Amino acid sequence: MTELNLEACRRIVQAALAKGVAIGCAPMSAAVLDAGGNVIAFERADDTPPGRFEVARAKAYGAVMLHKGGRAQEALAEARPQVATALGGAFDGKFFPLKGGVLVRNAAGRVLGAVGVTGDSPDNDEACAVAGVEAVEGLVAEP
Amino acid sequence: MTELNLEACRRIVQAALAKGVAIGCAPMSAAVLDAGGNVIAFERADDTPPGRFEVARAKAYGAVMLHKGGRAQEALAEARPQVATALGGAFDGKFFPLKGGVLVRNAAGRVLGAVGVTGDSPDNDEACAVAGVEAVEGLVAEP
Amino acid sequence: MTELNLEACRRIVQAALAKGVAIGCAPMSAAVLDAGGNVIAFERADDTPPGRFEVARAKAYGAVMLHKGGRAQEALAEARPQVATALGGAFDGKFFPLKGGVLVRNAAGRVLGAVGVTGDSPDNDEACAVAGVEAVEGLVAEP
Amino acid sequence: MTELNLEACRRIVQAALAKGVAIGCAPMSAAVLDAGGNVIAFERADDTPPGRFEVARAKAYGAVMLHKGGRAQEALAEARPQVATALGGAFDGKFFPLKGGVLVRNAAGRVLGAVGVTGDSPDNDEACAVAGVEAVEGLVAEP
Repeated sequence: MTELNLEACRRIVQAALAKGVAIGCAPMSAAVLDAGGNVIAFERADDTPPGRFEVARAKAYGAVMLHKGGRAQEALAEARPQVATALGGAFDGKFFPLKGGVLVRNAAGRVLGAVGVTGDSPDNDEACAVAGVEAVEGLVAEP
Repeated sequence: MTELNLEACRRIVQAALAKGVAIGCAPMSAAVLDAGGNVIAFERADDTPPGRFEVARAKAYGAVMLHKGGRAQEALAEARPQVATALGGAFDGKFFPLKGGVLVRNAAGRVLGAVGVTGDSPDNDEACAVAGVEAVEGLVAEP
Repeated sequence: MTELNLEACRRIVQAALAKGVAIGCAPMSAAVLDAGGNVIAFERADDTPPGRFEVARAKAYGAVMLHKGGRAQEALAEARPQVATALGGAFDGKFFPLKGGVLVRNAAGRVLGAVGVTGDSPDNDEACAVAGVEAVEGLVAEP
Repeated sequence: MTELNLEACRRIVQAALAKGVAIGCAPMSAAVLDAGGNVIAFERADDTPPGRFEVARAKAYGAVMLHKGGRAQEALAEARPQVATALGGAFDGKFFPLKGGVLVRNAAGRVLGAVGVTGDSPDNDEACAVAGVEAVEGLVAEP
């Protein structure tokens, strides 16, 4: 795969939401962005608060814009909180340095986009995002 | 139905995209928003320009925020362009007074949300949005 | 070419500015964006007003986000001014429906990005943008 | 020199990117702003994440707006994080208090603009920005 198509994105989103159900999480929401940071697909599960799109997109957007997964962003934000604040400003609020933002690469290592998942703890959000990416053959998740 | 659930939103989005294929449109994108204007689901078809999310959401957002479908918004914008400009400002750019934004009501007339579709001509966008809403039993489309 | 590299973007920018000098225009400015709408290169000539970056980027951004060159955007804006206003809102001000925004495709027709040029009349801006794109072998300008 | 011209800015940008290559950094991006905070030139190297323009400009913008290099901004942000947050808001997100933003003065001490470089560690970003400024005779870098 050289870029994410809608069929792949649907599977990512639905596998991420299904993983949340399987491991007993609160209802999940997931966004998939292309390599330029533009939204391809999003779903918010039933019985979730309304603000999920903004958080899910922000987790994925920061990952794409920096080519860094949520863990690396979280480490950066803990080491240098003022940099995290500055990135939030530079990216107009579309930055969320927490587990749950996962970079999507193809087998050759090329960045195809990112997934952002939110709904439960950061660890569970990340597990669901990774499960989503791994549901599509040939994609590699970088949490 | 008293509020849109994800299953209904998936059917709306997928029926809207399928309608576009069926009537020979350019590839479509569709967003569904709840009664509070917050995104529940979005999909962008393959081979579309990257800016589809912003337009699809804006079409649906204006519909929900004003309880007016795209046609009524378009008529308003033609009669009073300065009001349309002001609404764009008031809604922070999430306003798109054109066919393709369709209000979603239940059988009792209650507003449950809105759909925004973009990809082809305004008339075709509207036809796809209406087809999406009508794919779910009990929902009424107000274009 | 499957995506714009910096060497190509430098040639586009410099050829656009040189074209302006060659045809006797006021000093030019040019921005090149990738297929996701993100800036790769920009230059503002000497003796220009300071606001050139925002205009040049906006011309290119609208082209990439809609897959429409400046002429098509201008025609849209003339036919339906309220749609142009709405697009400006949806794209957060990064929309400038005027000649001078030129889509960049490769020989196979794939959109690689866009160029936005500003400094003189819309016709001259467009001529410079096209000259920039055509300075790179294998690129096709869609004004 | 009493103000930055495009030729000087090109040399700054290209020398900054070349310095990164010379010292083995990840690919660099560099923006040059004039004394009013407006962009004159920007380049993003190949194989970089797409969000570089926003960060590079923000580093330079804060330097110009405050007449403080990145080091001084970083010290301020560490001593008074809430001031850094406020500056990010006041400058609409165009503030990045980290090494890599370098003020550009002429020999007489007059501020002519600033350079913002991003791509590797803050120390390396700063080294590249300084190398860029020092590539132009008569310019003094204030990191």
